[in-house]
Amino acid sequence: MAEKVTIATVARHAQVSRQTVSNVLNAPHVVREETRRRVQEAITALGYRANQAARQMRTGRSRLIAVRIEPTRDGINGSVLDRFLHGLTETADAAGYRVLLYTARDDGHEIATYDDLLGAYDLDAFVLTGTDHGDPRTAWLAEREVPFVTFGRPWDAPDAHPWVDVDGAAGTAQATRRLLDTGHRRIAFLGWPAGSGVGDDRRAGWRTTLAAAGLDGAAPDAATEDGIAEGERVMRDLLALDEPPTAVVCVSDSLALGALQAVRVAAAPVAVVGFDDTPVAAAVGLTSVSQPLAAAAARCVELLTALLDGQPTDPQVLLRPELVLRHTA
Amino acid sequence: MAEKVTIATVARHAQVSRQTVSNVLNAPHVVREETRRRVQEAITALGYRANQAARQMRTGRSRLIAVRIEPTRDGINGSVLDRFLHGLTETADAAGYRVLLYTARDDGHEIATYDDLLGAYDLDAFVLTGTDHGDPRTAWLAEREVPFVTFGRPWDAPDAHPWVDVDGAAGTAQATRRLLDTGHRRIAFLGWPAGSGVGDDRRAGWRTTLAAAGLDGAAPDAATEDGIAEGERVMRDLLALDEPPTAVVCVSDSLALGALQAVRVAAAPVAVVGFDDTPVAAAVGLTSVSQPLAAAAARCVELLTALLDGQPTDPQVLLRPELVLRHTA
Repeated sequence: MAEKVTIATVARHAQVSRQTVSNVLNAPHVVREETRRRVQEAITALGYRANQAARQMRTGRSRLIAVRIEPTRDGINGSVLDRFLHGLTETADAAGYRVLLYTARDDGHEIATYDDLLGAYDLDAFVLTGTDHGDPRTAWLAEREVPFVTFGRPWDAPDAHPWVDVDGAAGTAQATRRLLDTGHRRIAFLGWPAGSGVGDDRRAGWRTTLAAAGLDGAAPDAATEDGIAEGERVMRDLLALDEPPTAVVCVSDSLALGALQAVRVAAAPVAVVGFDDTPVAAAVGLTSVSQPLAAAAARCVELLTALLDGQPTDPQVLLRPELVLRHTA
Repeated sequence: MAEKVTIATVARHAQVSRQTVSNVLNAPHVVREETRRRVQEAITALGYRANQAARQMRTGRSRLIAVRIEPTRDGINGSVLDRFLHGLTETADAAGYRVLLYTARDDGHEIATYDDLLGAYDLDAFVLTGTDHGDPRTAWLAEREVPFVTFGRPWDAPDAHPWVDVDGAAGTAQATRRLLDTGHRRIAFLGWPAGSGVGDDRRAGWRTTLAAAGLDGAAPDAATEDGIAEGERVMRDLLALDEPPTAVVCVSDSLALGALQAVRVAAAPVAVVGFDDTPVAAAVGLTSVSQPLAAAAARCVELLTALLDGQPTDPQVLLRPELVLRHTA
């Protein structure tokens, strides 16, 4: 019979202490990457398998994180959360956690699902993708002291709970500066109706950048629900103005694709910038603001593991997006 | 204190027997949809929560299904598996199962992950997205009698294990017939190099349809790795032939987008059909073959629950795709 592979065997093989192997298994973020890789390689080479049930008994952890998967939408903006989910699963795997998926029709159903999942699987934590004003879900979780992190800020109370977000205003500010730098002076914004945290934030970046250049009075500010058809319709209206804009910053790639369509039909030389750098943007050559989704997912997992391990951590993480230049601006 | 909600309470509320409530919880596929919905509504209205641990003790089930999430690729073809995952999570939820995600670098790593997951979470079953010729993963699972279903056929041995797949040959045959019906006679195929089950199947649908029309001798058959740039390059070559094709059936939307680009640059009146009906195809007006991904996901869950409950079932399910007509063909 082959020798039983234990933590001690792995430690000998990787030339580290047993405590380091234990850290790699239970708190990998405290281990230097090079060491972590060496230990992981030893674990793979030796076929070491930590007994999860035993580990759970010892640590009180199931090492399961639950994430909601959104219903399929138009497939354009939906791809953002899909990419976040990919990143989250990859980082969680590396940190020794698994991702459990669930669906929910609305906030009430989602809270009922939390209750069900916590009873059923003894989950360690939740990752919420997105927050609303006065979100009842985060209040429910906080009341029960269930660890969670949101991808998206609580707009009403920034310190309410741990979150990771991308600075949307910085993204539209970059886009607007790029258009100013290339000579545009009438730069419109095509956004969502006021009242959504994400949409208002992106509008603010455009507005403050134009104001700093002394140009905010001359800039049309249009709003509509999201969608390619909606973007095309509103852009047609903007092009029909007495002094039409020469460029437009859009709150989403869906609206930008619609705007692009209107611009092409009218053969108007109007620059268009989208937001989210979706696969569709790449395919049609749309300049767009890219969110660092893999980094955001990794920071969510880091934040959660630090919380679960009682490590000190900065519980609010704001990441910078990046403007990806293509053909339309 | 409020009355404790039990299966009997739910049964009274929904006006069904306790056995029916139990079936909805443990074997929902044996219950008629209308009844199942009524019971689910009663469960929601009353806030009934089956104790998962107790249920697992009773049934020997964790009610967890594991699915691999693929690394992010170009985001065009990758969206197919993302849509499948959405459908799978939704159907699994309705059947009382949860989806656990994992990642894997290669087949060997994936098998090590099976071993780890089975030890850690007592999983009920696996869903594999895609199969290769001589797949070591399915052999490993079958040897250990772990229930699984693949989305994709085992090309070497169609009866080897349960699977759900989409009839790719039927999809390209539909596309080719559409082109024949609209007057095309030189219809090229732009595919992947021979040797992949999926790619060869899609090529076969084009070839047999042309052969039935007595036209296969005159049709260029091109092959390249997947990608927009690759599609553009090969399409340029096809357009440079002495007798260039007037239409092209592509094995993927990525290749079709590249082909479309070459056709537009050359201002050649060539019809283009893609495969997978991705969001990008919808955005640019590309005619494409659509896979019924929600249905495929639902059939995977049905197949698995039938296997786990020891119910008789047809273990091989082949679904028909549908040609979505837009502007390019």
